[in-house]
Amino acid sequence: MSLIVQKFGGTSVANAERVMNVAKIVTDTYAQGNDVVVVVSAQGDFTDVLVDKQMEINPKANRREQDMLLAAGEQISIALLAMAIEKLGYHAVSLLGWQAGFETSSSHTSARIKRVDPARIREALDRRNIVVVAGFQGLSRYGDITTLGRGGSDTSAVAIAAAMHADLCQIYTDVEGVYTADPRKVENAKKLDEISYDEMLELATLGAQVLNNRSVEMAKKYNIELEVLSSLTRAKGTIVKEKSKMEKMLISGVAKDTDIARISVTGVPNTPGIAFKMFSKLSKKDINIDIILQSVGHDGKKDISFTVAKSRGQEAVDALKDYMESHGASGIQLDENVAKISIVGAGMESHAGVATKMFEALYDAQINIQMISTSEIKVSVLIDAVDADKAVKAIHAKFFD
Amino acid sequence: MSLIVQKFGGTSVANAERVMNVAKIVTDTYAQGNDVVVVVSAQGDFTDVLVDKQMEINPKANRREQDMLLAAGEQISIALLAMAIEKLGYHAVSLLGWQAGFETSSSHTSARIKRVDPARIREALDRRNIVVVAGFQGLSRYGDITTLGRGGSDTSAVAIAAAMHADLCQIYTDVEGVYTADPRKVENAKKLDEISYDEMLELATLGAQVLNNRSVEMAKKYNIELEVLSSLTRAKGTIVKEKSKMEKMLISGVAKDTDIARISVTGVPNTPGIAFKMFSKLSKKDINIDIILQSVGHDGKKDISFTVAKSRGQEAVDALKDYMESHGASGIQLDENVAKISIVGAGMESHAGVATKMFEALYDAQINIQMISTSEIKVSVLIDAVDADKAVKAIHAKFFD
Repeated sequence: MSLIVQKFGGTSVANAERVMNVAKIVTDTYAQGNDVVVVVSAQGDFTDVLVDKQMEINPKANRREQDMLLAAGEQISIALLAMAIEKLGYHAVSLLGWQAGFETSSSHTSARIKRVDPARIREALDRRNIVVVAGFQGLSRYGDITTLGRGGSDTSAVAIAAAMHADLCQIYTDVEGVYTADPRKVENAKKLDEISYDEMLELATLGAQVLNNRSVEMAKKYNIELEVLSSLTRAKGTIVKEKSKMEKMLISGVAKDTDIARISVTGVPNTPGIAFKMFSKLSKKDINIDIILQSVGHDGKKDISFTVAKSRGQEAVDALKDYMESHGASGIQLDENVAKISIVGAGMESHAGVATKMFEALYDAQINIQMISTSEIKVSVLIDAVDADKAVKAIHAKFFD
Repeated sequence: MSLIVQKFGGTSVANAERVMNVAKIVTDTYAQGNDVVVVVSAQGDFTDVLVDKQMEINPKANRREQDMLLAAGEQISIALLAMAIEKLGYHAVSLLGWQAGFETSSSHTSARIKRVDPARIREALDRRNIVVVAGFQGLSRYGDITTLGRGGSDTSAVAIAAAMHADLCQIYTDVEGVYTADPRKVENAKKLDEISYDEMLELATLGAQVLNNRSVEMAKKYNIELEVLSSLTRAKGTIVKEKSKMEKMLISGVAKDTDIARISVTGVPNTPGIAFKMFSKLSKKDINIDIILQSVGHDGKKDISFTVAKSRGQEAVDALKDYMESHGASGIQLDENVAKISIVGAGMESHAGVATKMFEALYDAQINIQMISTSEIKVSVLIDAVDADKAVKAIHAKFFD
């Protein structure tokens, strides 16, 4: 007998029919002799319904009350799923975040899990219940309801799996697993059987968002085996674990990120420390910088380019403009029509020429590379946004066809 | 400075505009120098939305999960009201039933309040917050969310007022107070300035439901002054307290109850104990009996009539039929076309002739009386349902015009 944690997102429980479908999956797993803890998100777009209610009244409401409001969403879905399981003839108990032992920081709307005390979950399992837990939510040390922010339910599931030493944590979603590229865009995209935590982390940051980063980091830390799979087809998904069998594969995927902007500061004087001051101004505003390119200086001047999230682009320009110009820079430009294309793969560490092969694919497709960034398991290039899909196809074909 | 508990029902917070209206009432009260605790119900028909969701999945779901589901309703409305109060420039903190210290029995969907520990409410008030509490809900000793059943939010408000020794508990509703008769039916119905707990209790049982009975009983027990008033007009309402000033008034109201059925058992043998056995059969099924009429026996036989709630009528007949007929009764009839008309007033204790005046009004209106029942502060008559509104008008005119 294994202990399996299963997590279902909002689309998987969007309506009565879907809830019954989830109940079927859960009870099948239980009937095979497993202990089952299920973590669910709020139904479909119910969170939007709640946010709309707030917007009508007070768009700037304090975050404690936002959490109070939003946490009602999962409360509804856990009750409904428990009822659906009961309908199929099994015993179920629903637990809110605080009842399931989730103690979090008190940073409302983006709280971090501090501790999970699964005593009540364990007790309910001991009484042969399927336990249905509200994802995304917890309780602060002040006894206030908190929410975990984006992707929080994935993290809730992994945290329970870690606290209870579960044998497997299944993340049910609306795709069948992790693919070598976006299957809606790339015809030959293949589902991966396995992928390592690190590769998954890179893919998540790169916009191929199947799993939330925090949840993968936590799974890595506690060595929890994850499976990403579809609640609709129930086909075998992708296993995320420490050492993937795929080591012989050069790369595990090609990802595209268009939520990105490039900022170029031209004619920056070659004074020591000026780049440092520039970036520290951005980090004070919590603006993350990704790829950085600094031109070779000439005439005591240099150009510095870097990328930020598109939503923070204008803010970054505003934060730097006066300072840079008063320190002699000749100008600052924002370009939002860029895309970052990345290949990810633990295999590239031990294989030379992976980057070259990627550049060759882009050259063959006549796509100009603006910036390059590499890490041990990743190569990213910045290109014009209009070329993004073409680039992904060309690179994918080069490595996988 | 006074401590005032204000309770708002579902219609008072049905949409964003109404929520802002409630926030205005609450903050006005606070701005006058009072400490304010607000108790709210779920928004408008949101409870129905939740019940529909359940019905689609499992109409017979266990009651613990029903409570989990329903309690989400108030969670949404307390968050929204706190946000609305904040929008008006005041500090507010919302608290769920369990956060506000409501400990209840574990009889889900109709739990009883065992204890209110208002420590968190008090602490929040001390920090100059307006405190918004979810009505209708609490926590059982097993740490499960419970709901109080019908009218539960009124009871929540009175329980807080009792636990905190509040100076006043205002129940905001969609009528302006307690009337001498239903103002939609009787043109000259007058709003009462004051009414006693006992009178209010009689009126509530009689279907002139402005306040839930449990809340009035609790207010009486702890001597909490209640005010019933409208959240829309904000006019002065009706005060409910121990000794009303209205003692000179003979009666405080005329009420009609059509949710009633009459059962007649004819030809019952005049054997000792047979009536007792008959009624104990009904009490075993939790069927309450109201007015009882037993005819003078002749030929060793008698007729027994009594009234029950209309919804339990057929059940009562089924419970008695075989037993009564096997013990010699000649038949049992159910009549659902009856109405109970009552006059209520603490003043009638010390004034003779109140009942006579009522019967005279009915005689003048040519309305036949089927049964009569009296208590210290009430006279009720059973009549044909078609005459009900005419009877209320005639009696009201006799006493109030």
